[in-house]
Parts: sequence; C-alpha cells; structure tokens
Amino acid sequence: MSARENREVRLTARPRGIPQAEHFSVVTEPVAAPGDGEILIQNRYLSVDPAQRGWANDEGNYSAPVPLDTPMRSLAVGEILESNVAGYRAGEHVYGWFGWQRYCVTTPEAVLRRVTPSRLPLSANLSVLGMNGITAYLAFHGLGDPKPGEHVLVSTAAGSVGSFVGQLATIAGCRAVGLTSSGEKAALAKARYGYREMINYRDVADLGAAIRAACPDGNDIFFDNTGGMIADAAIRTMRLRGRVIQCGTAANASWTPTPTGPRPEREILTRRLRWSGFIIFDHLAEFETAAAQLAELALAGKIVHDEEILPGLDHAPGAIARLYRGENHGKLIIAVD
Amino acid sequence: MSARENREVRLTARPRGIPQAEHFSVVTEPVAAPGDGEILIQNRYLSVDPAQRGWANDEGNYSAPVPLDTPMRSLAVGEILESNVAGYRAGEHVYGWFGWQRYCVTTPEAVLRRVTPSRLPLSANLSVLGMNGITAYLAFHGLGDPKPGEHVLVSTAAGSVGSFVGQLATIAGCRAVGLTSSGEKAALAKARYGYREMINYRDVADLGAAIRAACPDGNDIFFDNTGGMIADAAIRTMRLRGRVIQCGTAANASWTPTPTGPRPEREILTRRLRWSGFIIFDHLAEFETAAAQLAELALAGKIVHDEEILPGLDHAPGAIARLYRGENHGKLIIAVD
Repeated sequence: MSARENREVRLTARPRGIPQAEHFSVVTEPVAAPGDGEILIQNRYLSVDPAQRGWANDEGNYSAPVPLDTPMRSLAVGEILESNVAGYRAGEHVYGWFGWQRYCVTTPEAVLRRVTPSRLPLSANLSVLGMNGITAYLAFHGLGDPKPGEHVLVSTAAGSVGSFVGQLATIAGCRAVGLTSSGEKAALAKARYGYREMINYRDVADLGAAIRAACPDGNDIFFDNTGGMIADAAIRTMRLRGRVIQCGTAANASWTPTPTGPRPEREILTRRLRWSGFIIFDHLAEFETAAAQLAELALAGKIVHDEEILPGLDHAPGAIARLYRGENHGKLIIAVD
Repeated sequence: MSARENREVRLTARPRGIPQAEHFSVVTEPVAAPGDGEILIQNRYLSVDPAQRGWANDEGNYSAPVPLDTPMRSLAVGEILESNVAGYRAGEHVYGWFGWQRYCVTTPEAVLRRVTPSRLPLSANLSVLGMNGITAYLAFHGLGDPKPGEHVLVSTAAGSVGSFVGQLATIAGCRAVGLTSSGEKAALAKARYGYREMINYRDVADLGAAIRAACPDGNDIFFDNTGGMIADAAIRTMRLRGRVIQCGTAANASWTPTPTGPRPEREILTRRLRWSGFIIFDHLAEFETAAAQLAELALAGKIVHDEEILPGLDHAPGAIARLYRGENHGKLIIAVD
C-alpha cells in the first residue's frame, strides 16, 4: 500500500463545445499500490491539447469520450516510482496516456515511448518530441509532400503544432506564411518559427484579401488546424494540385449540429486539390523515428520549441478553454506540483 | 474554296447556371477551305458533357469560357475530308475539340487521338474510349486506389462516367453501390453497370439512411460526380482512410454565389479521408494507354457502354439542360446530320 495522495483532475460534467473549468473537479484520493503487471508513475508534466475538447465531448469522434468522474485523458511525461513489470525500472522516465493527475497506476500499454535522457528539458517530450512535434513532422511530410520553392500556409501558426510546421517548411526549402490570433503571436512566429509573413486574422477586414496579399502566388500546401472561415478563405488561394492537410478543426466550438459554410467541392475539383485528414494515433509505428529526427534538429539548434508551463494541477480545469481563447504562447503544459 | 455549308451551334447568350436551348443559335455558314497546316473534318458525332455548363458560364473555372457567337466547345469524332498537314490523311477518323458543328477547320492541336478502326462503333470514341470511359478509368484507379473487397459508392451511377465506374469497381473486386435519379435508371445500372445495389435519391425520404441501408459497412471509395446533398450524406458513411474522388459537381446549378452546406472538415479529420479533385485534361499523357485498355475490356465483353444518340444538330441547344435534368440513359451524343 502506498501512502501517497493522488490529486486527480476529473471530468465531472459533459461539455457541449469547449470544456470550461466548471466541467472539471480536482479530487484528492489515496494512491493504490501497483498490482501485477502494473507500474506507478509520478507525472511531472501534463499536456493540454485541442483534441481534448473532442475527448471530453460526447460527439461522434475518433476516440471514445472520457467517462465522467475519471481523470481527464491526457498525455504526460513522468517518472516510474514502482514497477511490477519486467523491463520497466523505477527512476526511468516515460511518455504516455497517464491523465491529468499527480500519480498514475497503469500498464505498459499506456506508455507511448520511453524518454531517453538528453540535454533537452523533460517537458520537451510533450512539445517538440511529443505529439505536437511529431504531428507537424509526419503530417507535413507525409501528406504535404513539400518540394523546395513551394508555398505553405499554416493556420494557428504560433500554436503547439503550427510553430513546428513553419520551421519544418523552411527547412524543406518552402516559403511559409502563417495565420494567428494576435499581433504579439504574429511577431513571435516571424521571429522564431520560420514564417516569412504572418496574418493576424482578428485584425483584418477581408481574410481572403489578406491571404492573397501575403501569398501573392497562392499556396501549394495549406496546413490547417482550424477549419471554419480560415479554411474557407485558404482553400480559395490554393494553386493547382495543392494539398490541404486537415490536422484539427479548432475554429468551430461545437459540431452538434453541424455548422455550415461555403461548399468546397467545386474548389477541390477545379483546383485538383488533395484534402487529407491526419490523426497522429494512426502513426504510432513512425513515432520513434520522427522523435529521433526532431531531437536531432532541436539539439542542433535548427528547430526551436516554445512552451508555456502553468505551475500546478489547479490550472488544468481552465487550460483547454485558455487554449481555445488563443492565449497560450507555444505548447501549453501543466507542471505537476 | 469548299462549297460545303457548315451548320454551327453557337453560344449566343451567357447563361448563369445550366445552359438552356435559348442560349444557343443554329447558324448556317459556308465552310472555309483549310489553309496551310490545317485540316477539314466532317463531324460524325458530338459529345454532350456536364462540363459544358462550366465552359458556357463565365465563372472562375478550370478552362476559359466559350466566347459568345462561336460554336459551343465540345469533343467530337469525325472524318478528315481534306488535309494540308503531313501525317493526316483524308478518310482517317479523329477525336478531339471540333465543337458543336457539322464541319471543323482546325489544326492538329485540336486532335486528341486518332481513331483506330475496330469492331466498336464510331460513337464509342465519345463514350467508353472517350473522356467518359477514360475519366472513370484514370480517376477510379489513380485516386481511388481500390483494393479487392472494398466498398465503393458512386453518384450519377447510370451516367456517362458512373456507368463505367460501377463496372471497373466490380472488375477490381469491389462492391459497388450507386445513386441515380430514377427507378428506371437504377434498374439499368443494376442490370448492366455492375452495381450491387442502387438508390434512387429522388425516391427516399432520408438520403443518409438510404445510403447506410445499401452500404451497411460504410464506404472506402466515394466517386462523386454531383457534390451537394448527395456528397454531404455520402462522406458521412466513409470508413477510416476512405477516398473521395471529386469528378464533377453537377448537383449545384450555379456556383455564384457559392452555395453553402454542412462543413466537411471534421469528417475529413476524424475519418482520415483523402478527398481529391480529378480533371481529365491533366492526364492527356495517360490517355492512349487507358483507351487501349478500355477497348480491350469492351471488345472482350467485360465492359458495356450505353449511348443515347440524338438525331441531328438541332437537338444540341437543349442537350446540356436535358443532361442536367437526368433524362439521358448513358452517354448523351448528338449524331451530326
């Protein structure tokens, strides 16, 4: 029996749309000792991701909704304290599905990757070496098929994925332009994330005209994390045989009922677009390779990663709403106290 | 100077949406003799295609609009009567951009393919060996990536392209289900075009439910010639990593202003779809090979082609509207009188 006290951030009410602080409760409970085949992990950093909106909701989705009164589903990086599994040792760090809580008793199925000690900070395993960096890497290269000299447009360009896409596009010899929600983030993305031009979409009267001005030759790749009106305008700037990568749909707070917008099928046809959806969980087999390549780029100083770390579990309940308000700078992470 | 009289079906008014008979005039004119580098063709059969709507309109499109007071742009098959070009002989048949008219004086650039004499009728060069068969072949195989056992849904399944897609899907070992606009065409498509099930979308109260009933396991490929509400329902039946081929957008009579519909981006994301536009004119280099393979299938009786041949040029002005009313059975062709 462990005498440790767990603190869990439980989903206690089912949101419609964006989860707010009131949909969660922070609960203190004793930690059960790990049984046979289980490990006890002390979480150090918890991830805050746009996808958590979908996991908290009960809409048709790509993963089952989080059950009520259980810790919010999340990625985390932590240290193994006790192990009843051969091959996992106390003191090792791991990255995986450990939830919004201080301690996690789980099986190795929840572990996505062992964390190799490196000069990169432990939290980097939730950003550049985590789902965000790996998503940017695999989606951009796998679905974008970038060629040197091509033009790339990215929505939420200063966000946890977009901040890597701009850098990867530039490394690939492309010209990257980004969209973001504030002048401050636009400046950051130009200074740090490889973007040639940035558009603050909250500050323009005509989004289509702003994109055409920043991308006078159109776009070969649109890396989209938002959908909605930004996507409507962006796909109308695509060049022939352009690729649209749908990596998120953050622009619409709710998909019940389905929101409407201008029909895209004529654009897809006349521009011969290829519009593909990307979900990182289809790509677990490519995970280790992508993380190794990103670590190499990060250690060589070729790719930077910005993290906004909220101090303490009490920040978790409001963190998803904060993300959707666009207030974070780079990857939003919770440090476990 | 040739003493021949040409009859031209000219576009004389700019339509918005579907061109009607009143947008055309049939004009009689003397035929000019072919100059240096020109050939004189006597058209035998003229093609009627959904794409002609776009060519007649002045909307943003994938080809320039047909100038007013000139013969309507169309594919045709005809016989060379006089040639001032080395390598083209009187008596040969050719397929190409000869327009809605009895005679055409043009250069070899307008010729897409020489017509090899075969046991197939001359009109087959506008259907199974023409743009329609070749579009079905290249779009289905090139963008659909069909695998045996996969499930394929096709809109306008009894139409000039869809009638081949059902057969090609069946030849590829897939299960094909089609949508069409009448019970009669549904029966035809089941009897002749390889479709396991057919849905008459004008006869169902709930299109989504009808598709789910006919495709209980969902769809891996949606070959779409319509867009609109049919596409809205169809993409919501796609299986993970399904492929949507946008080959036409016949459901909407006008794209000015852009019609609205339920947003697709969440479906693209959560189902990991790949939605691609196909336009045959990108694929001229693959044309000859595809035609040869289709000819082989047709001569072996593995693929059937149905044509509705309207007798005489006077039928041309109303023919596009007839197509959009869904009244034709198979490929709509005008025999030149």
